[in-house]
Amino acid sequence: MKLKVYVDRMSQPSRAVIIFCKVNGIQFDETLISLAKRQQLTSEFKDINPIGKVPAIVDGRLKLFESHAILIYLSSAFPSVVDHWYPNDLSQRAKIHSVLDWHHTSLRPGAAGYVLYSVLAPALGLPLNPEKAAEAEKLLTKSLSTLETFWLKGNGKFLLGGNQPSIADLSLVCELMQLQVLDDKDRLRLLSPHKKVEEWIDNTRKATMPHFDEVHEVLFRAKDRFQKQRELGAVSKPGIQSKM
Amino acid sequence: MKLKVYVDRMSQPSRAVIIFCKVNGIQFDETLISLAKRQQLTSEFKDINPIGKVPAIVDGRLKLFESHAILIYLSSAFPSVVDHWYPNDLSQRAKIHSVLDWHHTSLRPGAAGYVLYSVLAPALGLPLNPEKAAEAEKLLTKSLSTLETFWLKGNGKFLLGGNQPSIADLSLVCELMQLQVLDDKDRLRLLSPHKKVEEWIDNTRKATMPHFDEVHEVLFRAKDRFQKQRELGAVSKPGIQSKM
Repeated sequence: MKLKVYVDRMSQPSRAVIIFCKVNGIQFDETLISLAKRQQLTSEFKDINPIGKVPAIVDGRLKLFESHAILIYLSSAFPSVVDHWYPNDLSQRAKIHSVLDWHHTSLRPGAAGYVLYSVLAPALGLPLNPEKAAEAEKLLTKSLSTLETFWLKGNGKFLLGGNQPSIADLSLVCELMQLQVLDDKDRLRLLSPHKKVEEWIDNTRKATMPHFDEVHEVLFRAKDRFQKQRELGAVSKPGIQSKM
Repeated sequence: MKLKVYVDRMSQPSRAVIIFCKVNGIQFDETLISLAKRQQLTSEFKDINPIGKVPAIVDGRLKLFESHAILIYLSSAFPSVVDHWYPNDLSQRAKIHSVLDWHHTSLRPGAAGYVLYSVLAPALGLPLNPEKAAEAEKLLTKSLSTLETFWLKGNGKFLLGGNQPSIADLSLVCELMQLQVLDDKDRLRLLSPHKKVEEWIDNTRKATMPHFDEVHEVLFRAKDRFQKQRELGAVSKPGIQSKM
Protein backbone atom coordinates (compact mmCIF):
# COMPACT_ATOMS: atom_id res chain seq x y z
CA MET A 1 0.00 0.00 0.00
CA LYS A 2 1.27 3.46 -0.92
CA LEU A 3 2.66 5.79 1.75
CA LYS A 4 0.07 8.31 2.95
CA VAL A 5 1.24 11.80 3.84
CA TYR A 6 -0.99 14.26 5.76
CA VAL A 7 0.20 17.83 5.36
CA ASP A 8 -0.53 21.49 4.96
CA ARG A 9 2.05 23.00 2.63
CA MET A 10 1.82 26.25 4.62
CA SER A 11 3.57 24.33 7.44
CA GLN A 12 7.33 24.26 7.05
CA PRO A 13 7.87 20.69 8.37
CA SER A 14 5.10 19.49 6.03
CA ARG A 15 7.00 20.96 3.08
CA ALA A 16 10.23 19.29 4.18
CA VAL A 17 8.55 15.88 4.18
CA ILE A 18 6.91 16.35 0.75
CA ILE A 19 10.09 17.68 -0.89
CA PHE A 20 12.02 14.76 0.62
CA CYS A 21 9.59 12.20 -0.85
CA LYS A 22 9.64 13.84 -4.28
CA VAL A 23 13.42 14.23 -4.46
CA ASN A 24 13.90 10.60 -3.47
CA GLY A 25 11.27 9.12 -5.77
CA ILE A 26 9.11 7.87 -2.89
CA GLN A 27 5.54 7.33 -4.14
CA PHE A 28 2.90 8.81 -1.83
CA ASP A 29 -0.68 10.02 -1.59
CA GLU A 30 -0.92 13.55 -0.22
CA THR A 31 -3.91 14.58 1.91
CA LEU A 32 -4.36 18.24 2.82
CA ILE A 33 -5.10 18.86 6.49
CA SER A 34 -5.90 22.58 6.40
CA LEU A 35 -4.58 24.38 9.47
CA ALA A 36 -6.59 27.50 8.61
CA LYS A 37 -9.74 25.33 8.70
CA ARG A 38 -8.59 23.58 11.93
CA GLN A 39 -8.73 20.20 10.20
CA GLN A 40 -5.83 18.97 12.36
CA LEU A 41 -8.28 18.90 15.25
CA THR A 42 -10.96 16.68 13.66
CA SER A 43 -11.52 13.25 15.19
CA GLU A 44 -10.75 11.71 11.79
CA PHE A 45 -7.25 13.21 11.77
CA LYS A 46 -6.74 12.64 15.49
CA ASP A 47 -7.09 8.93 14.77
CA ILE A 48 -3.85 9.34 12.78
CA ASN A 49 -2.17 11.86 15.06
CA PRO A 50 -3.81 12.31 18.48
CA ILE A 51 -1.54 15.32 19.10
CA GLY A 52 -3.31 17.10 16.23
CA LYS A 53 -0.32 18.35 14.25
CA VAL A 54 0.92 18.04 10.69
CA PRO A 55 2.83 16.44 9.10
CA ALA A 56 1.89 12.83 9.81
CA ILE A 57 2.29 9.67 7.74
CA VAL A 58 0.73 6.24 7.56
CA ASP A 59 2.94 3.50 6.13
CA GLY A 60 1.26 0.10 6.37
CA ARG A 61 0.51 -0.40 10.07
CA LEU A 62 2.75 2.47 11.17
CA LYS A 63 1.20 5.83 12.06
CA LEU A 64 3.90 8.42 12.66
CA PHE A 65 4.15 12.14 13.36
CA GLU A 66 6.91 14.70 14.10
CA SER A 67 8.72 15.67 10.91
CA HIS A 68 12.23 14.74 12.06
CA ALA A 69 11.06 11.27 13.07
CA ILE A 70 9.32 10.97 9.68
CA LEU A 71 12.39 12.05 7.70
CA ILE A 72 14.58 9.60 9.61
CA TYR A 73 12.07 6.79 9.12
CA LEU A 74 11.71 7.42 5.38
CA SER A 75 15.50 7.56 4.99
CA SER A 76 15.79 4.18 6.67
CA ALA A 77 12.75 2.42 5.19
CA PHE A 78 13.03 3.40 1.51
CA PRO A 79 16.08 1.95 -0.27
CA SER A 80 15.93 4.67 -2.95
CA VAL A 81 17.16 7.26 -0.43
CA VAL A 82 20.87 7.94 -0.96
CA ASP A 83 23.17 7.78 2.09
CA HIS A 84 23.99 11.51 2.30
CA TRP A 85 20.43 12.30 3.46
CA TYR A 86 20.95 10.31 6.67
CA PRO A 87 24.43 8.77 6.73
CA ASN A 88 25.09 5.31 8.08
CA ASP A 89 28.38 6.51 9.54
CA LEU A 90 27.76 6.77 13.30
CA SER A 91 29.58 10.05 13.88
CA GLN A 92 28.01 11.79 10.90
CA ARG A 93 24.58 10.53 11.88
CA ALA A 94 25.14 11.71 15.46
CA LYS A 95 25.99 15.21 14.23
CA ILE A 96 22.81 15.29 12.16
CA HIS A 97 20.76 14.32 15.22
CA SER A 98 22.53 17.11 17.10
CA VAL A 99 21.53 19.72 14.46
CA LEU A 100 17.96 18.42 14.41
CA ASP A 101 17.73 18.70 18.22
CA TRP A 102 19.19 22.20 18.08
CA HIS A 103 16.52 23.08 15.48
CA HIS A 104 13.83 22.16 18.01
CA THR A 105 15.27 24.18 20.86
CA SER A 106 16.68 27.22 19.04
CA LEU A 107 15.99 27.87 15.38
CA ARG A 108 12.35 26.76 15.28
CA PRO A 109 11.02 28.69 18.31
CA GLY A 110 12.87 31.77 17.02
CA ALA A 111 11.85 31.63 13.37
CA ALA A 112 8.35 30.16 13.73
CA GLY A 113 7.63 32.33 16.77
CA TYR A 114 8.64 35.51 14.97
CA VAL A 115 6.57 34.72 11.86
CA LEU A 116 3.57 33.62 13.93
CA TYR A 117 3.42 36.60 16.24
CA SER A 118 4.30 39.23 13.65
CA VAL A 119 2.30 38.00 10.61
CA LEU A 120 0.52 34.63 10.63
CA ALA A 121 -1.40 34.66 13.95
CA PRO A 122 -4.66 36.23 12.70
CA ALA A 123 -4.93 33.61 9.95
CA LEU A 124 -4.88 30.98 12.71
CA GLY A 125 -7.38 32.77 14.92
CA LEU A 126 -4.75 34.21 17.29
CA PRO A 127 -3.85 37.82 18.06
CA LEU A 128 -0.57 39.34 16.86
CA ASN A 129 1.81 39.84 19.79
CA PRO A 130 4.63 42.39 19.39
CA GLU A 131 6.19 41.46 22.73
CA LYS A 132 6.41 37.75 21.89
CA ALA A 133 7.57 38.64 18.36
CA ALA A 134 10.45 40.66 19.84
CA GLU A 135 11.40 37.79 22.14
CA ALA A 136 11.33 35.33 19.23
CA GLU A 137 13.40 37.73 17.10
CA LYS A 138 16.19 37.70 19.69
CA LEU A 139 16.31 33.90 19.58
CA LEU A 140 16.13 33.91 15.77
CA THR A 141 19.00 36.39 15.44
CA LYS A 142 21.13 34.34 17.83
CA SER A 143 20.26 31.13 15.95
CA LEU A 144 21.17 32.68 12.58
CA SER A 145 24.56 33.66 14.02
CA THR A 146 25.08 30.11 15.29
CA LEU A 147 24.21 28.77 11.83
CA GLU A 148 26.61 31.21 10.17
CA THR A 149 29.57 30.73 12.49
CA PHE A 150 29.19 27.14 13.67
CA TRP A 151 26.89 24.80 11.76
CA LEU A 152 27.99 26.24 8.38
CA LYS A 153 31.68 26.68 9.13
CA GLY A 154 34.17 25.29 6.63
CA ASN A 155 33.92 25.28 2.85
CA GLY A 156 31.09 22.77 2.37
CA LYS A 157 27.89 23.84 0.69
CA PHE A 158 25.72 22.32 3.42
CA LEU A 159 25.53 21.97 7.22
CA LEU A 160 28.43 20.25 9.02
CA GLY A 161 30.73 20.91 6.07
CA GLY A 162 28.82 18.53 3.80
CA ASN A 163 28.92 18.62 0.01
CA GLN A 164 25.52 16.94 -0.29
CA PRO A 165 22.36 17.85 1.65
CA SER A 166 21.08 15.87 4.63
CA ILE A 167 17.62 15.77 6.18
CA ALA A 168 18.86 18.50 8.54
CA ASP A 169 19.55 20.88 5.64
CA LEU A 170 16.09 20.30 4.25
CA SER A 171 14.33 20.68 7.60
CA LEU A 172 16.14 23.85 8.64
CA VAL A 173 15.94 25.54 5.23
CA CYS A 174 12.18 24.89 5.06
CA GLU A 175 11.95 26.54 8.48
CA LEU A 176 13.74 29.66 7.25
CA MET A 177 11.68 29.77 4.05
CA GLN A 178 8.73 30.64 6.30
CA LEU A 179 10.33 34.09 6.64
CA GLN A 180 9.08 34.70 3.08
CA VAL A 181 5.72 35.84 4.47
CA LEU A 182 7.43 38.78 6.21
CA ASP A 183 7.74 42.15 4.59
CA ASP A 184 10.77 41.95 2.24
CA LYS A 185 12.66 44.65 4.13
CA ASP A 186 12.10 42.87 7.41
CA ARG A 187 13.26 39.53 6.02
CA LEU A 188 16.40 41.06 4.52
CA ARG A 189 17.15 42.88 7.77
CA LEU A 190 17.16 39.51 9.53
CA LEU A 191 18.87 37.35 6.90
CA SER A 192 21.28 39.58 4.97
CA PRO A 193 23.89 39.90 7.76
CA HIS A 194 24.36 36.13 7.37
CA LYS A 195 25.88 35.52 3.94
CA LYS A 196 26.62 31.84 4.47
CA VAL A 197 23.06 31.24 5.58
CA GLU A 198 21.74 32.92 2.42
CA GLU A 199 24.07 30.84 0.21
CA TRP A 200 23.13 27.64 2.02
CA ILE A 201 19.40 28.27 1.56
CA ASP A 202 20.10 28.73 -2.14
CA ASN A 203 22.29 25.60 -2.29
CA THR A 204 19.58 23.51 -0.65
CA ARG A 205 16.96 24.92 -3.02
CA LYS A 206 19.11 24.09 -6.06
CA ALA A 207 19.87 20.58 -4.82
CA THR A 208 16.14 19.80 -4.52
CA MET A 209 14.78 21.54 -7.62
CA PRO A 210 12.26 21.55 -9.25
CA HIS A 211 10.43 20.13 -6.24
CA PHE A 212 11.60 22.84 -3.85
CA ASP A 213 9.93 25.66 -5.76
CA GLU A 214 6.87 23.62 -6.65
CA VAL A 215 6.19 22.67 -3.02
CA HIS A 216 6.80 26.25 -1.85
CA GLU A 217 4.30 27.71 -4.37
CA VAL A 218 1.55 27.94 -1.75
CA LEU A 219 3.93 29.91 0.48
CA PHE A 220 4.88 32.28 -2.32
CA ARG A 221 1.18 32.91 -3.01
CA ALA A 222 0.65 33.64 0.70
CA LYS A 223 3.65 35.99 0.59
CA ASP A 224 1.98 37.93 -2.26
CA ARG A 225 -1.31 38.12 -0.37
CA PHE A 226 0.38 39.46 2.76
CA GLN A 227 2.36 41.96 0.67
CA LYS A 228 -0.82 43.27 -0.97
CA GLN A 229 -2.46 43.59 2.44
CA ARG A 230 0.56 45.54 3.65
CA GLU A 231 0.31 47.88 0.67
CA LEU A 232 -3.33 48.41 1.57
CA GLY A 233 -2.22 49.16 5.11
CA ALA A 234 -3.98 46.15 6.61
CA VAL A 235 -0.95 44.42 8.16
CA SER A 236 1.56 47.24 8.07
CA LYS A 237 3.02 46.40 11.47
CA PRO A 238 2.70 43.89 14.28
CA GLY A 239 0.01 44.93 16.70
CA ILE A 240 -2.66 45.42 14.05
CA GLN A 241 -4.84 42.36 13.53
CA SER A 242 -5.98 41.22 10.12
CA LYS A 243 -7.46 38.24 8.33
CA MET A 244 -5.37 36.32 5.79
CA MET B 1 40.56 6.47 25.09
CA LYS B 2 37.72 6.55 27.61
CA LEU B 3 34.49 8.40 26.83
CA LYS B 4 34.44 11.91 28.36
CA VAL B 5 31.13 13.24 29.66
CA TYR B 6 30.64 16.93 30.53
CA VAL B 7 27.66 17.47 32.78
CA ASP B 8 25.99 19.24 35.65
CA ARG B 9 23.84 16.76 37.55
CA MET B 10 21.39 19.58 38.30
CA SER B 11 20.55 19.48 34.57
CA GLN B 12 17.95 16.84 33.73
CA PRO B 13 19.44 15.82 30.33
CA SER B 14 22.86 15.54 32.00
CA ARG B 15 21.42 13.07 34.48
CA ALA B 16 19.81 11.02 31.71
CA VAL B 17 23.19 10.62 29.99
CA ILE B 18 25.04 9.63 33.17
CA ILE B 19 22.38 7.14 34.29
CA PHE B 20 22.39 5.64 30.79
CA CYS B 21 26.16 5.12 30.85
CA LYS B 22 26.09 3.58 34.32
CA VAL B 23 23.16 1.24 33.63
CA ASN B 24 24.82 0.02 30.44
CA GLY B 25 28.31 -0.45 31.85
CA ILE B 26 29.84 2.24 29.63
CA GLN B 27 33.10 3.44 31.15
CA PHE B 28 33.42 7.23 31.25
CA ASP B 29 35.18 10.16 32.88
CA GLU B 30 32.74 12.72 34.26
CA THR B 31 33.65 16.42 34.28
CA LEU B 32 31.43 18.87 36.14
CA ILE B 33 30.50 21.97 34.15
CA SER B 34 28.79 24.03 36.86
CA LEU B 35 25.82 25.97 35.48
CA ALA B 36 25.56 28.01 38.69
CA LYS B 37 29.19 29.11 38.12
CA ARG B 38 28.52 29.74 34.38
CA GLN B 39 31.26 27.23 33.44
CA GLN B 40 29.31 26.29 30.30
CA LEU B 41 30.28 29.69 28.90
CA THR B 42 34.07 29.38 29.37
CA SER B 43 36.20 29.26 26.21
CA GLU B 44 37.57 25.91 27.40
CA PHE B 45 34.11 24.33 27.38
CA LYS B 46 33.04 26.17 24.24
CA ASP B 47 35.83 24.33 22.45
CA ILE B 48 33.80 21.18 23.20
CA ASN B 49 30.33 22.70 22.74
CA PRO B 50 30.27 26.13 21.08
CA ILE B 51 26.56 26.41 21.95
CA GLY B 52 27.54 26.41 25.63
CA LYS B 53 25.16 23.80 27.00
CA VAL B 54 25.46 20.56 28.97
CA PRO B 55 25.56 17.64 28.49
CA ALA B 56 28.30 17.14 25.92
CA ILE B 57 30.58 14.19 25.23
CA VAL B 58 33.93 13.58 23.57
CA ASP B 59 34.47 10.09 22.18
CA GLY B 60 37.73 9.85 20.28
CA ARG B 61 37.55 12.50 17.57
CA LEU B 62 33.80 13.04 18.00
CA LYS B 63 32.56 16.03 19.99
CA LEU B 64 28.80 15.83 20.48
CA PHE B 65 26.08 17.73 22.32
CA GLU B 66 22.25 17.58 22.69
CA SER B 67 21.25 14.77 25.03
CA HIS B 68 18.97 12.91 22.63
CA ALA B 69 21.71 12.82 20.00
CA ILE B 70 24.13 11.59 22.69
CA LEU B 71 21.80 8.83 23.92
CA ILE B 72 21.20 7.63 20.35
CA TYR B 73 24.93 7.69 19.60
CA LEU B 74 25.85 5.78 22.75
CA SER B 75 23.14 3.19 22.05
CA SER B 76 24.58 2.64 18.58
CA ALA B 77 28.31 2.85 19.36
CA PHE B 78 28.55 0.71 22.50
CA PRO B 79 27.76 -2.99 21.97
CA SER B 80 26.92 -3.47 25.66
CA VAL B 81 23.69 -1.50 25.20
CA VAL B 82 20.73 -3.88 24.96
CA ASP B 83 18.29 -3.42 22.04
CA HIS B 84 15.30 -2.20 24.07
CA TRP B 85 17.03 1.13 24.79
CA TYR B 86 17.00 2.05 21.07
CA PRO B 87 15.42 -0.78 19.06
CA ASN B 88 16.75 -1.81 15.66
CA ASP B 89 13.19 -2.41 14.46
CA LEU B 90 12.41 0.54 12.15
CA SER B 91 8.85 1.16 13.37
CA GLN B 92 9.74 0.95 17.04
CA ARG B 93 12.73 3.22 16.50
CA ALA B 94 10.56 5.71 14.58
CA LYS B 95 8.12 5.88 17.48
CA ILE B 96 10.95 6.57 19.89
CA HIS B 97 12.18 9.43 17.68
CA SER B 98 8.60 10.72 17.67
CA VAL B 99 8.44 10.77 21.49
CA LEU B 100 11.85 12.41 21.71
CA ASP B 101 10.76 15.15 19.27
CA TRP B 102 7.55 15.65 21.23
CA HIS B 103 9.64 16.01 24.38
CA HIS B 104 11.46 18.96 22.76
CA THR B 105 8.33 20.75 21.65
CA SER B 106 5.92 20.00 24.50
CA LEU B 107 7.06 18.35 27.71
CA ARG B 108 10.41 20.09 28.11
CA PRO B 109 9.29 23.72 27.58
CA GLY B 110 6.39 23.05 29.96
CA ALA B 111 8.26 21.27 32.75
CA ALA B 112 11.60 23.07 32.54
CA GLY B 113 9.89 26.42 32.00
CA TYR B 114 7.68 26.00 35.05
CA VAL B 115 10.55 24.94 37.30
CA LEU B 116 12.82 27.69 36.00
CA TYR B 117 10.38 30.57 36.34
CA SER B 118 8.83 29.46 39.62
CA VAL B 119 11.93 28.22 41.53
CA LEU B 120 15.33 27.92 39.85
CA ALA B 121 15.74 31.28 38.07
CA PRO B 122 17.46 33.20 40.90
CA ALA B 123 20.09 30.45 41.22
CA LEU B 124 20.94 31.09 37.56
CA GLY B 125 20.99 34.87 37.86
CA LEU B 126 17.51 35.36 36.38
CA PRO B 127 14.36 36.84 37.92
CA LEU B 128 11.37 34.66 38.83
CA ASN B 129 8.50 35.29 36.40
CA PRO B 130 4.97 34.31 37.52
CA GLU B 131 3.48 35.12 34.10
CA LYS B 132 5.90 32.84 32.25
CA ALA B 133 5.52 30.19 34.97
CA ALA B 134 1.74 30.23 34.42
CA GLU B 135 2.20 29.88 30.66
CA ALA B 136 4.63 26.97 31.15
CA GLU B 137 2.23 25.33 33.62
CA LYS B 138 -0.50 25.23 30.97
CA LEU B 139 1.83 23.46 28.55
CA LEU B 140 3.05 21.11 31.30
CA THR B 141 -0.50 20.15 32.31
CA LYS B 142 -1.43 19.48 28.70
CA SER B 143 1.73 17.42 28.20
CA LEU B 144 1.08 15.35 31.33
CA SER B 145 -2.40 14.56 29.98
CA THR B 146 -0.91 13.52 26.64
CA LEU B 147 1.55 11.26 28.46
CA GLU B 148 -1.25 9.72 30.54
CA THR B 149 -3.75 9.15 27.73
CA PHE B 150 -1.56 8.60 24.69
CA TRP B 151 2.12 7.80 25.19
CA LEU B 152 1.39 5.56 28.19
CA LYS B 153 -1.77 3.90 26.90
CA GLY B 154 -1.97 0.13 27.05
CA ASN B 155 -0.71 -2.17 29.77
CA GLY B 156 3.04 -1.79 29.29
CA LYS B 157 5.19 -0.39 32.10
CA PHE B 158 6.90 2.09 29.80
CA LEU B 159 6.19 4.52 26.93
CA LEU B 160 4.66 3.13 23.74
CA GLY B 161 3.44 0.05 25.59
CA GLY B 162 6.95 -1.24 26.21
CA ASN B 163 7.91 -3.72 28.90
CA GLN B 164 11.51 -2.49 29.00
CA PRO B 165 12.67 1.13 29.11
CA SER B 166 13.99 3.02 26.09
CA ILE B 167 16.11 6.16 25.92
CA ALA B 168 12.81 8.08 25.66
CA ASP B 169 11.64 6.80 29.06
CA LEU B 170 14.92 7.82 30.64
CA SER B 171 14.98 11.26 29.03
CA LEU B 172 11.39 12.16 29.83
CA VAL B 173 11.45 10.80 33.38
CA CYS B 174 14.63 12.77 34.16
CA GLU B 175 12.77 15.84 32.89
CA LEU B 176 9.87 15.27 35.25
CA MET B 177 12.20 14.53 38.18
CA GLN B 178 13.16 18.22 37.99
CA LEU B 179 9.72 18.93 39.53
CA GLN B 180 11.27 17.67 42.80
CA VAL B 181 12.58 21.17 43.50
CA LEU B 182 9.01 22.48 43.68
CA ASP B 183 7.12 22.68 46.92
CA ASP B 184 5.72 19.16 47.59
CA LYS B 185 2.13 20.36 47.48
CA ASP B 186 2.71 22.08 44.16
CA ARG B 187 4.37 18.99 42.65
CA LEU B 188 1.57 16.72 43.82
CA ARG B 189 -1.05 19.14 42.48
CA LEU B 190 0.56 18.81 39.04
CA LEU B 191 1.43 15.10 39.04
CA SER B 192 -1.18 13.30 41.15
CA PRO B 193 -4.07 13.59 38.64
CA HIS B 194 -1.91 11.43 36.33
CA LYS B 195 -1.65 8.01 37.94
CA LYS B 196 -0.02 6.28 34.97
CA VAL B 197 2.62 9.00 34.81
CA GLU B 198 3.42 8.51 38.49
CA GLU B 199 3.67 4.72 38.07
CA TRP B 200 5.84 5.10 34.97
CA ILE B 201 8.28 7.42 36.77
CA ASP B 202 8.55 4.78 39.48
CA ASN B 203 8.97 1.95 36.94
CA THR B 204 11.77 3.84 35.19
CA ARG B 205 13.45 4.55 38.52
CA LYS B 206 13.30 0.87 39.53
CA ALA B 207 14.61 -0.30 36.15
CA THR B 208 17.70 1.89 36.52
CA MET B 209 18.49 1.48 40.22
CA PRO B 210 20.75 2.00 42.10
CA HIS B 211 22.12 4.50 39.57
CA PHE B 212 18.88 6.49 39.30
CA ASP B 213 18.86 7.52 42.95
CA GLU B 214 22.62 8.00 43.13
CA VAL B 215 22.67 10.38 40.13
CA HIS B 216 19.64 12.28 41.46
CA GLU B 217 21.25 12.84 44.89
CA VAL B 218 22.34 16.36 43.97
CA LEU B 219 18.74 17.17 43.00
CA PHE B 220 17.37 15.77 46.24
CA ARG B 221 19.86 17.94 48.18
CA ALA B 222 18.71 20.97 46.20
CA LYS B 223 15.10 20.03 46.96
CA ASP B 224 15.91 20.07 50.69
CA ARG B 225 17.63 23.45 50.40
CA PHE B 226 14.65 24.98 48.59
CA GLN B 227 12.27 23.46 51.12
CA LYS B 228 14.23 24.97 54.02
CA GLN B 229 14.24 28.35 52.29
CA ARG B 230 10.47 28.07 51.83
CA GLU B 231 10.05 27.32 55.52
CA LEU B 232 12.11 30.43 56.26
CA GLY B 233 9.82 32.35 53.91
CA ALA B 234 12.57 33.13 51.41
CA VAL B 235 11.03 31.49 48.36
CA SER B 236 7.47 31.09 49.54
CA LYS B 237 5.96 32.01 46.21
CA PRO B 238 6.94 32.90 42.67
CA GLY B 239 7.63 36.60 42.33
CA ILE B 240 10.01 36.79 45.30
CA GLN B 241 13.66 36.47 44.32
CA SER B 242 16.18 34.47 46.32
CA LYS B 243 19.63 32.94 46.06
CA MET B 244 20.04 29.17 46.01
